[in-house]
Amino acid sequence: MSLGVCYYPEHWPEAWWEQDARRMREFGIDYVRIGEFAWSRYEPERGKFDWGWLDRAMDVLAKAGLKIVLGTPTCTPPKWLVDANPEMIPVDEQGRPRGFGSRRHYTFSSKAYWEESRRIVEVLSQRYGNHPGLVGWQTDNEYGCHDSILSWSATDLAAFQEWLRRKYQSPEQLNEAWGNAFWSMEVTRFDQVSLPNLAVTETNPAARLDFWRFHSEQVAGYDAMQCAILRANSPGRWITHNFMGFFNDFDHWAVGDNIDLASWDSYPIGFVERFPFTEEEKNRWALTSHPDIAPFHHDLYRGVGHGRFWVMEQQPGPVNWAPWNPVPKPGMVRLWTWEALAHGAEVVSYFRWRQATFAQEQMHAGLNLPGLHEFSQGGREAQTVGAELAALGSLPEPEKTAVAIVYDYESSWITRIQPQGADFHYYELVFRWYEAARRLGLDVDFVRPGASLAGYRLVLVPSLLHVSDAAEKAFAAADGIVFYGPRTGSKTRNYGIPANLPPGPLQPLVKLRVLEVSSLRPGLSLRVAGSVSGEARRWRDLVEAQGADVLARFEDGGPALAVAGRHHYLACWPDEALLRSMLTFACGKAGLATIDLPDCIRLRRRGALHFAFNYGDEVWSVPDAQAATLGAATVPPQGVAILQPSGHMTRS
Amino acid sequence: MSLGVCYYPEHWPEAWWEQDARRMREFGIDYVRIGEFAWSRYEPERGKFDWGWLDRAMDVLAKAGLKIVLGTPTCTPPKWLVDANPEMIPVDEQGRPRGFGSRRHYTFSSKAYWEESRRIVEVLSQRYGNHPGLVGWQTDNEYGCHDSILSWSATDLAAFQEWLRRKYQSPEQLNEAWGNAFWSMEVTRFDQVSLPNLAVTETNPAARLDFWRFHSEQVAGYDAMQCAILRANSPGRWITHNFMGFFNDFDHWAVGDNIDLASWDSYPIGFVERFPFTEEEKNRWALTSHPDIAPFHHDLYRGVGHGRFWVMEQQPGPVNWAPWNPVPKPGMVRLWTWEALAHGAEVVSYFRWRQATFAQEQMHAGLNLPGLHEFSQGGREAQTVGAELAALGSLPEPEKTAVAIVYDYESSWITRIQPQGADFHYYELVFRWYEAARRLGLDVDFVRPGASLAGYRLVLVPSLLHVSDAAEKAFAAADGIVFYGPRTGSKTRNYGIPANLPPGPLQPLVKLRVLEVSSLRPGLSLRVAGSVSGEARRWRDLVEAQGADVLARFEDGGPALAVAGRHHYLACWPDEALLRSMLTFACGKAGLATIDLPDCIRLRRRGALHFAFNYGDEVWSVPDAQAATLGAATVPPQGVAILQPSGHMTRS
Amino acid sequence: MSLGVCYYPEHWPEAWWEQDARRMREFGIDYVRIGEFAWSRYEPERGKFDWGWLDRAMDVLAKAGLKIVLGTPTCTPPKWLVDANPEMIPVDEQGRPRGFGSRRHYTFSSKAYWEESRRIVEVLSQRYGNHPGLVGWQTDNEYGCHDSILSWSATDLAAFQEWLRRKYQSPEQLNEAWGNAFWSMEVTRFDQVSLPNLAVTETNPAARLDFWRFHSEQVAGYDAMQCAILRANSPGRWITHNFMGFFNDFDHWAVGDNIDLASWDSYPIGFVERFPFTEEEKNRWALTSHPDIAPFHHDLYRGVGHGRFWVMEQQPGPVNWAPWNPVPKPGMVRLWTWEALAHGAEVVSYFRWRQATFAQEQMHAGLNLPGLHEFSQGGREAQTVGAELAALGSLPEPEKTAVAIVYDYESSWITRIQPQGADFHYYELVFRWYEAARRLGLDVDFVRPGASLAGYRLVLVPSLLHVSDAAEKAFAAADGIVFYGPRTGSKTRNYGIPANLPPGPLQPLVKLRVLEVSSLRPGLSLRVAGSVSGEARRWRDLVEAQGADVLARFEDGGPALAVAGRHHYLACWPDEALLRSMLTFACGKAGLATIDLPDCIRLRRRGALHFAFNYGDEVWSVPDAQAATLGAATVPPQGVAILQPSGHMTRS
Repeated sequence: MSLGVCYYPEHWPEAWWEQDARRMREFGIDYVRIGEFAWSRYEPERGKFDWGWLDRAMDVLAKAGLKIVLGTPTCTPPKWLVDANPEMIPVDEQGRPRGFGSRRHYTFSSKAYWEESRRIVEVLSQRYGNHPGLVGWQTDNEYGCHDSILSWSATDLAAFQEWLRRKYQSPEQLNEAWGNAFWSMEVTRFDQVSLPNLAVTETNPAARLDFWRFHSEQVAGYDAMQCAILRANSPGRWITHNFMGFFNDFDHWAVGDNIDLASWDSYPIGFVERFPFTEEEKNRWALTSHPDIAPFHHDLYRGVGHGRFWVMEQQPGPVNWAPWNPVPKPGMVRLWTWEALAHGAEVVSYFRWRQATFAQEQMHAGLNLPGLHEFSQGGREAQTVGAELAALGSLPEPEKTAVAIVYDYESSWITRIQPQGADFHYYELVFRWYEAARRLGLDVDFVRPGASLAGYRLVLVPSLLHVSDAAEKAFAAADGIVFYGPRTGSKTRNYGIPANLPPGPLQPLVKLRVLEVSSLRPGLSLRVAGSVSGEARRWRDLVEAQGADVLARFEDGGPALAVAGRHHYLACWPDEALLRSMLTFACGKAGLATIDLPDCIRLRRRGALHFAFNYGDEVWSVPDAQAATLGAATVPPQGVAILQPSGHMTRS
Repeated sequence: MSLGVCYYPEHWPEAWWEQDARRMREFGIDYVRIGEFAWSRYEPERGKFDWGWLDRAMDVLAKAGLKIVLGTPTCTPPKWLVDANPEMIPVDEQGRPRGFGSRRHYTFSSKAYWEESRRIVEVLSQRYGNHPGLVGWQTDNEYGCHDSILSWSATDLAAFQEWLRRKYQSPEQLNEAWGNAFWSMEVTRFDQVSLPNLAVTETNPAARLDFWRFHSEQVAGYDAMQCAILRANSPGRWITHNFMGFFNDFDHWAVGDNIDLASWDSYPIGFVERFPFTEEEKNRWALTSHPDIAPFHHDLYRGVGHGRFWVMEQQPGPVNWAPWNPVPKPGMVRLWTWEALAHGAEVVSYFRWRQATFAQEQMHAGLNLPGLHEFSQGGREAQTVGAELAALGSLPEPEKTAVAIVYDYESSWITRIQPQGADFHYYELVFRWYEAARRLGLDVDFVRPGASLAGYRLVLVPSLLHVSDAAEKAFAAADGIVFYGPRTGSKTRNYGIPANLPPGPLQPLVKLRVLEVSSLRPGLSLRVAGSVSGEARRWRDLVEAQGADVLARFEDGGPALAVAGRHHYLACWPDEALLRSMLTFACGKAGLATIDLPDCIRLRRRGALHFAFNYGDEVWSVPDAQAATLGAATVPPQGVAILQPSGHMTRS
Repeated sequence: MSLGVCYYPEHWPEAWWEQDARRMREFGIDYVRIGEFAWSRYEPERGKFDWGWLDRAMDVLAKAGLKIVLGTPTCTPPKWLVDANPEMIPVDEQGRPRGFGSRRHYTFSSKAYWEESRRIVEVLSQRYGNHPGLVGWQTDNEYGCHDSILSWSATDLAAFQEWLRRKYQSPEQLNEAWGNAFWSMEVTRFDQVSLPNLAVTETNPAARLDFWRFHSEQVAGYDAMQCAILRANSPGRWITHNFMGFFNDFDHWAVGDNIDLASWDSYPIGFVERFPFTEEEKNRWALTSHPDIAPFHHDLYRGVGHGRFWVMEQQPGPVNWAPWNPVPKPGMVRLWTWEALAHGAEVVSYFRWRQATFAQEQMHAGLNLPGLHEFSQGGREAQTVGAELAALGSLPEPEKTAVAIVYDYESSWITRIQPQGADFHYYELVFRWYEAARRLGLDVDFVRPGASLAGYRLVLVPSLLHVSDAAEKAFAAADGIVFYGPRTGSKTRNYGIPANLPPGPLQPLVKLRVLEVSSLRPGLSLRVAGSVSGEARRWRDLVEAQGADVLARFEDGGPALAVAGRHHYLACWPDEALLRSMLTFACGKAGLATIDLPDCIRLRRRGALHFAFNYGDEVWSVPDAQAATLGAATVPPQGVAILQPSGHMTRS
């Protein structure tokens, strides 16, 4: 449990480095991440290296007692490299090249760029792999940022054709898998396959899903290539990658397999503008962020990281990339830091030590004011945490939670390829289930589809479009109560409708089938009543019970919530009331105590400690006064408290 | 008066075909359309045909007693064909190619594709033209679907230049016709003409209108080419083409000249999202469709088909292509079927027999559930109609109506090329006039501009931008009351302002001229009062009466409705109240009885029978109880009644 | 003080010219602008000239007593020229060519087009430069219209690289200036610089600002090239260029350096749709325009023209290019004409003599109806002004005002490159300050940054992102009260954050610095109270006073308005109330009398005369009755009055 910071020695006079390092240490910072954007600085021309400055920077930092995380520089290939390898340039879905001038200007399909990446990671890790200050590596930076996973160039087409050849062996098998008989789309050679974009209308969803898988697998493979080199050249150091928020374009579980711990870049305020909140919600949370945005990702990346995660970049003040970029309310930087720790973060590392005075991100705050040796508001709050952490000593280890949510990247792709209802956003649905659980005071783990669910008393599956054999087995073996949401099991591996209708392989568990689906425009809704109540919006499955008991019905009599054994199926997109009603019902069945929290309050346990966070504008008093480790049982606005459990809180 | 269905034997195991055909017949289905997307299945490589499966499919269907409509496959050219003829690829207005991967990936300008089309239609019609099961042909499929009429490729440019050379003979005449003196746009050779897109700002509207005519004429010519081959090789069979809803990109009257009967694809629910309804209307009609959407097209295509039309594809449940795709209310599939028959449809053919489990349209319902031999909700309703039809025997023939609406495709192009007011949509205006007439219980015919108007007691011309000589003569010869709407006669053949100002050639009939026009943003309106009253929105003509009598005036005193003899001119886009007021006034003058129908009720006569349709949520009692042929005089929600006329109903 | 008109002899039969000229003179028109779009008419093929018609047209016009302004034809190069020089075609930011077919289809970077322009201006001015009817020249037409300043072609890239080479001398200096160390963007040769578009995400803002400066300088240079030729060949004639409304894409002050007087094209109604007004405002002003739109530009271009300006194109009725194009209320054409004269216009020239019946602008009104010798409503109003002018004789000369607003084109570019808040529009902010000043009855001059501010009692700087040395000196030397708005001084010349934080070089004057900035989404606001009060919206600077006195504070206690000596800093985007409060406070300090005008009334002085303009729907009585030179002290809707000052009006 430490603090860290992102630092760019190449942005500042060498004369400042020592002072910067000393002030970091005084501050309570243990870790410093460097180097991930510095390629043109240490290789200004191909093969001509200038390592001096980086050698000296690492030495200065290490000497000050900082533990260094070094980033591979592959997210910003220099201009000379791009000019020499034009086939690496990604192309967007509209056919426009996405050239040099910012970052991530490469497609994962480029063999030439793999070779260049291998070369630079090899050279870099040979040089610094055993540096005494070095404790870990970050591969690349934010895979996929700026929609850079999918690319639609000739390079991508050739690689996709090759991938299909390996996967399907014959054009006949490809035609069969994709259903190419429809609309005369059959091919007789793999080189007849075209990119699934720029057609007259929608292309084959099976082709698009494979195209997405192809790219996702390339990301994981590219990352594995870097990891293998780093492990060979830098023994004893761990590897991470810094993931992003609300981003689903590749399978993070697969990249998680490559690395020792996950990390992510937490910009809670900016994300408020990116999530499909209502305008009312956006105004409500504009200056604090929504209280589940950061926790959602802490819990998700704790899962991706096999229980270990960092916040690699913590927002320290206003950012530059959202449509509006307000200054967070005083206290929020401290709150977010403690919140990350409560959810199990090993390190919270701020982006960045000092606000740059130039280039694209000059309006992005840092712990220090632009170009100055003087703390910003966020810097002062981070300092406070540093002092609190020093006073507190260590915290208990985070434990497995009682509630699991199954999170699936393919479900995001499948629903984006064919939404069927314009506002069916997979990640929004999952977020709303998570939010509802947290409003009831529950702690949540995120679980990969197919991973064991043993020991979870309540398993939530907001949706899981394609249920693999492994996932089906894991559900069948679950020992808790399970709730599946709409569209679960509605697609086969090849983007088809299951032969026995949805939910396909889950029919034996839930004992019902879905005959038709209805997507509902924003003005429409359906009342739901029974054991649970509320309204359906956006989506409704028309269900035929085949042995399942109906627990609640739509106003037209159709089943809305049905159950067979421990397996429940919710046949709609629930509004807030229905979601809360259903989760309360679920917790009752699962024997989990709940507490009705205000919209601005969240709790989180870490071992025996209860953390409370107040995102609101009024003091919140924790029910049943408890002894406080930090703060007090009356939590002020933007305040944090760490409390001793009294036995009256939510965990049953 | 029969039912039909669209069937794709290539989607299902051959072993299922016999069972499918038998169940169709049990159902009451007489017609089956097949083959329109199957090119790659019977010609997987150029010149290598595989006819076996189609031979067997046709035999199985024919043997079961089904009458077969065979589609030419030209809307889905296979990949090998496209690869061999890259110049056939259409290009969108933004310059992006619209390649292989879905359908309609050809431009009508491609000579190579005409040759390939000729070849395949020749081969197909030689093989099956005299098949005993074959009763008719469908050319291609939904010309223009996915905005595929206009294309902006080098192929198109060359063909356009050639078309202009034939039309204008000399560059001087082209310059004169287009007014190229404006902005130095003159050319001295036809090969200097450029595509009217991708310029710095708006291109010459005369060039754009000619570009649209050029493409529209190509469609009609391409269709005529197919029809000629089919007639030669398949004597005694009729030919149709399946048109679409709310689609105006080519002159359907011209394609109508090629064919024996019109057909169209009726997706009433999906069209609700496509029409510029208010959000309130969209919510109101989301689950039933608006009660004039399907009838509008029945009446229009009855006109295009010289009095004969089919519904070739009838929506049988939820579809996949609208932003939201709800399940229709129970009863609507039956209602829509009866409604089509009431408007004169010879056959209502459902799309499709069985929901596919794969590819682009897998979320589009069928009469059977996906991949199953089991009826869907829509299938069961269609079955009901089948039984009702069998019990009912034949219906009287539809008759010419008392009210005609003149419908003009060029007016759609002209107003889209230069809207002058952003919300002036030609087809919306016509639809609103039609809706108002139907709300008064009137039956309507659609008439081509220039066709005889003799015998119509009321002729409505919501707008007709360019009034041709033929149209002018037909109006002058009309023996009923005529109402012209705003912008009528405002353009010459060459997209200019008439030398005598609008309404140009109609000035002698209406005895007024339009000095200026005012397009009104959504927040603005003008009161109209006099013989008719209500409000003007969106558009107002500033009229100078030159002999016309003014029947109503705007609040500033300007003429709003004027008349000379039988010719009335409405100088604005009317709101609902003004439209109803004007049509009530018009019917009074024309001696037509009207009835004020609720927004959800529509009537339609077929010979002596009155059909009543209830799109609403409450029972509607037909005024003056009548004997019922089907249903009863109290029509339930989503209900249908066929009643004997009592003499008190609307027809005078 | 005269009237003029734009005339296109090439649009009409030669037989009409004499009649047209005679009717112009009868009307009271002194000036006629011709020829700016006629290139293809006098050079139909390269080097083959047809001057006869233009010779005759000029002679006819001159003989009638009209003074001729001749336009160079370079905004509409003919097709043969474009075909011969394809590298002149501009490319938009998305990479699409912007080809022939309308106008302005050239990039200023094309050397070939400079050569062709030189040639035609040379030939044209040699032929007509000494024509006795000729009094002045217009260069090109509306530089930048249709977003034609920035272009992104290979031609542009080469010219940009060359421009950078001259500016920065070495790649190292370029890297340093742009901060290319960030994201590995460093180059080692100038030909490695790429266009700052079509990258994966945002490109370097310093590069984008230089790209904008590069293009802006090209415009000024291109205009200077034309001016030099014209001056050489046409002694004794003045030169102007016709600028546009709400257009900031190049530095108009720099083009102003080339010319003798500024002119602009005033379309008050169309501009209502273009400005980011609320829907409510757009409805309120739809038929009259907002009462500050035309005056804002009169005052701005009076500044650009060194005190001299024309309205070259005055809207005479409805136009064609806005989303909605209503007919102006009767009286507005007269009002706008008098208003221009009140603000100092030397000539108001209407666009155009007669509405064309063909091509792109056929729906744009003229003084005569389309194709007719018959005045439109606007024509009759202009006639009235002609008569009034004749009766009135001359007016006093306009004088320097008491209030100056500093207007800066680079500030528009800088805030568009990185808005930081999506609704921070520089020109909107300036307009709102101007509107507030005019609502208080103040007359306003616009001043170039760096120009002397001596003699102005109140200087308003709504924002000035980069404060140059010259600007800083001018502010320091100001002898009036100065108010700076948010973001002033927040950028260095190279698009960086000042080393001492914003407001950078102004810190010694205002004695505060800005630590952080907060952009506020539309739902957010902050109360401001103190010496001034109201609300902050959209933007808030977090200010640390360093000697400044705080005059008003935000609700959280932060300084909102601070002052040091005569220098005030407003730390937010003010709402209407705060703006009015602040300007009232400012006028109090500056000793300027104010009057609270209704939203629809404006005053303007010209020497000793007071002009009053009523944009509203009710009569407005001027407080303290005065003797009237035109109209009366009770001003009717859409009315104008010229009054003798009573001493009780606003000027102190």
